[in-house]
Amino acid sequence: MISCSIKRMEDKIVTFSKFGDTGRGGITRLSLSPEALEARNEFCKRCKELGMEIKTDDMANIYATIPGEEDLPAIMMGSHLDSVVQGGNYDGVMGVLTALEAAETIVTEKIGHRHPITVVVWTNEEGARFEPAMMSSGVITGKFKKEVMLASKDTKGVTFKEALEASGYMGDIENRMNPNDYMALVELHVEQGPVLEAEKKDIGIVEGVVGMINYEFTLTGQADHAGSTPMKYRKDALFAATKVIGYLHEEFDKLDSKLVYTTGRITASPNIHTVIPEVVKFTLDARHQDPEVIKQVVEIIQKVPSEIEKCQMSFKELWSRKTIAFYEEYVDFVEKNANEYEYSSMRLYSGPGHDAQYISDIIPSTMIFIPSENGHSHCEKEFTPLENCLKGANVLLQTILDIDRK
Amino acid sequence: MISCSIKRMEDKIVTFSKFGDTGRGGITRLSLSPEALEARNEFCKRCKELGMEIKTDDMANIYATIPGEEDLPAIMMGSHLDSVVQGGNYDGVMGVLTALEAAETIVTEKIGHRHPITVVVWTNEEGARFEPAMMSSGVITGKFKKEVMLASKDTKGVTFKEALEASGYMGDIENRMNPNDYMALVELHVEQGPVLEAEKKDIGIVEGVVGMINYEFTLTGQADHAGSTPMKYRKDALFAATKVIGYLHEEFDKLDSKLVYTTGRITASPNIHTVIPEVVKFTLDARHQDPEVIKQVVEIIQKVPSEIEKCQMSFKELWSRKTIAFYEEYVDFVEKNANEYEYSSMRLYSGPGHDAQYISDIIPSTMIFIPSENGHSHCEKEFTPLENCLKGANVLLQTILDIDRK
Repeated sequence: MISCSIKRMEDKIVTFSKFGDTGRGGITRLSLSPEALEARNEFCKRCKELGMEIKTDDMANIYATIPGEEDLPAIMMGSHLDSVVQGGNYDGVMGVLTALEAAETIVTEKIGHRHPITVVVWTNEEGARFEPAMMSSGVITGKFKKEVMLASKDTKGVTFKEALEASGYMGDIENRMNPNDYMALVELHVEQGPVLEAEKKDIGIVEGVVGMINYEFTLTGQADHAGSTPMKYRKDALFAATKVIGYLHEEFDKLDSKLVYTTGRITASPNIHTVIPEVVKFTLDARHQDPEVIKQVVEIIQKVPSEIEKCQMSFKELWSRKTIAFYEEYVDFVEKNANEYEYSSMRLYSGPGHDAQYISDIIPSTMIFIPSENGHSHCEKEFTPLENCLKGANVLLQTILDIDRK
Repeated sequence: MISCSIKRMEDKIVTFSKFGDTGRGGITRLSLSPEALEARNEFCKRCKELGMEIKTDDMANIYATIPGEEDLPAIMMGSHLDSVVQGGNYDGVMGVLTALEAAETIVTEKIGHRHPITVVVWTNEEGARFEPAMMSSGVITGKFKKEVMLASKDTKGVTFKEALEASGYMGDIENRMNPNDYMALVELHVEQGPVLEAEKKDIGIVEGVVGMINYEFTLTGQADHAGSTPMKYRKDALFAATKVIGYLHEEFDKLDSKLVYTTGRITASPNIHTVIPEVVKFTLDARHQDPEVIKQVVEIIQKVPSEIEKCQMSFKELWSRKTIAFYEEYVDFVEKNANEYEYSSMRLYSGPGHDAQYISDIIPSTMIFIPSENGHSHCEKEFTPLENCLKGANVLLQTILDIDRK
């Protein structure tokens, strides 16, 4: 079987790791920052060298296309080039670089294809500079209002609109990906979790993106002096919060073992070592592919007593999303190609959200995962061995060609 | 028995509540701020009207003295005029205003006394603008190095030295309170806790200040993605922290019921709702008058396992202080006078620290507590009924006169 080039793959990884290099093995490449524009410039330069035609839309999404032999909708592959602060060299960029390598293989090996093949770079997937995450795929699929997004500000007060106009990458709204001109998206991404590595699998066949809920709990007690308030008079919101967290863990652990739940953020007020905490807030993120399990989670939340350790307890849903199932035929192509290359693989759902999840609402989409060493992601330690990147590129290439042939 | 004037007491409270008035029932009167200087000016004006002699020392502590009939060391009473941000109208200032009222009663009623009687205002008790708390009583009793204190900065970058020099209240180092020229300090203070109110007592006879320890615990896990990390692979530092807090509560609750302990401050990192907490730190403040109980607390802390829920646990002592016992004879005078006025009273230890605790190291000292409504303090809701302030002033006056006669 045809293989992408490991040398070229390595060169791409090394080259792109310089844009925003923190000097500690990772990158800070916030959306539309000078570092992100350098990465875009390098991407476009390489696409032009391959004879690809480049368009950008009004959200600065980049579409680099190899023409097809027939007048048919295009097949897309790609991801994003932006990172979080002190992020790694694999999240997002690996989806772009494997797509670029697959395109380069098609061009250099002169592999015939009926459909145009497009490598896409989505703008501002991370939402690390301008909230929210998956902004541009969200705008073109109608999830977010463009006007609201344009007003989103970074910490320096620069709006997304200003950054977009200054980038040189803002194009015409008519260039947006649409269901008439595009027939598929395949997004390769690092897993950002430990499962593939632990299960010794090369390829994750992503069946969909799990549904999730995000709640915020508030415990309200009374801020009294740590030295002068006997224990029996206290209303300690932090102690009450630890009781709620303990209860949630205990109850959730009785549900399906694929459920993941996280109390990631906690804040106490006044948060002074000599004052009993008056208000403690914490978040609860819970994810599972089966809506029935999510329903059980919500039922457990609703059973938390409204008074705990003399403190008032309340909660509210911050947001939620339903489980997204990817396009079965493409999911099967990924599995078939992993098998044909004799790469070990497993089916799984994505816990994190990705651009493909929004795009799948308007065109058939799927994803390919490759392992993340120790499950690290969104940090400088993020790492995927070169061999795994190549394997991912190969499966991506063959999946695009399968879609082309169908 | 002679009584202070409730009308004058009320006037003092009303007048001083204007300096730094937040408009919501409280004050923000940070040390040496314009508002604090207004309060000092008003204090000095009133002292001068009573014919008192005013001196300030190099830390801007104010000493306003009624001469005595004999050449003897002075008896001091007083507290501080500074507040925390959005503090109340009673903490500190009530010790100054009751002392001023006691002095005014001595002057206007022409009560004879052998010793000079000094009303003192300590600079920067709160440490809310310039850390640490009890700065000036600490410097003159050798707890803190003056040079280090002078370099302490507020949030705007102003040093304590600059604020001191600009205040107009910086005097000579020779004016510092010293054991040759002073023989007693009696500090009245609001309780800042709920005990007197709950026990329906007018006067707290303060036997000393409880010993305390302050520890910081650190739980270290691993920051992984909330969506892609199965529960069995997680090292959740927040979950581990809740287990430690639960364990500490359970074990400490077996110790003496007068023990108070507080986990007042908690911080999680990275503190993002979609990331498993990697590092969680929380403080533990524990106080008891008996060193043996504090020792038991430390033994419990030392038994916390170093690995909890797959996270590493460590702790360190941030600081500690030993129990301070006040001067027994003066403590007894307070009790006797509460009884003679037929005010209900009880003996107790102070949980919070006060200037008198440092001063007691070099001259015999004691304190008088008056109730805090609902135990509120360091907040705008802080309140003590006028009648209770008057009762405190009366006991203070008689205690000063008892010390004078001995």
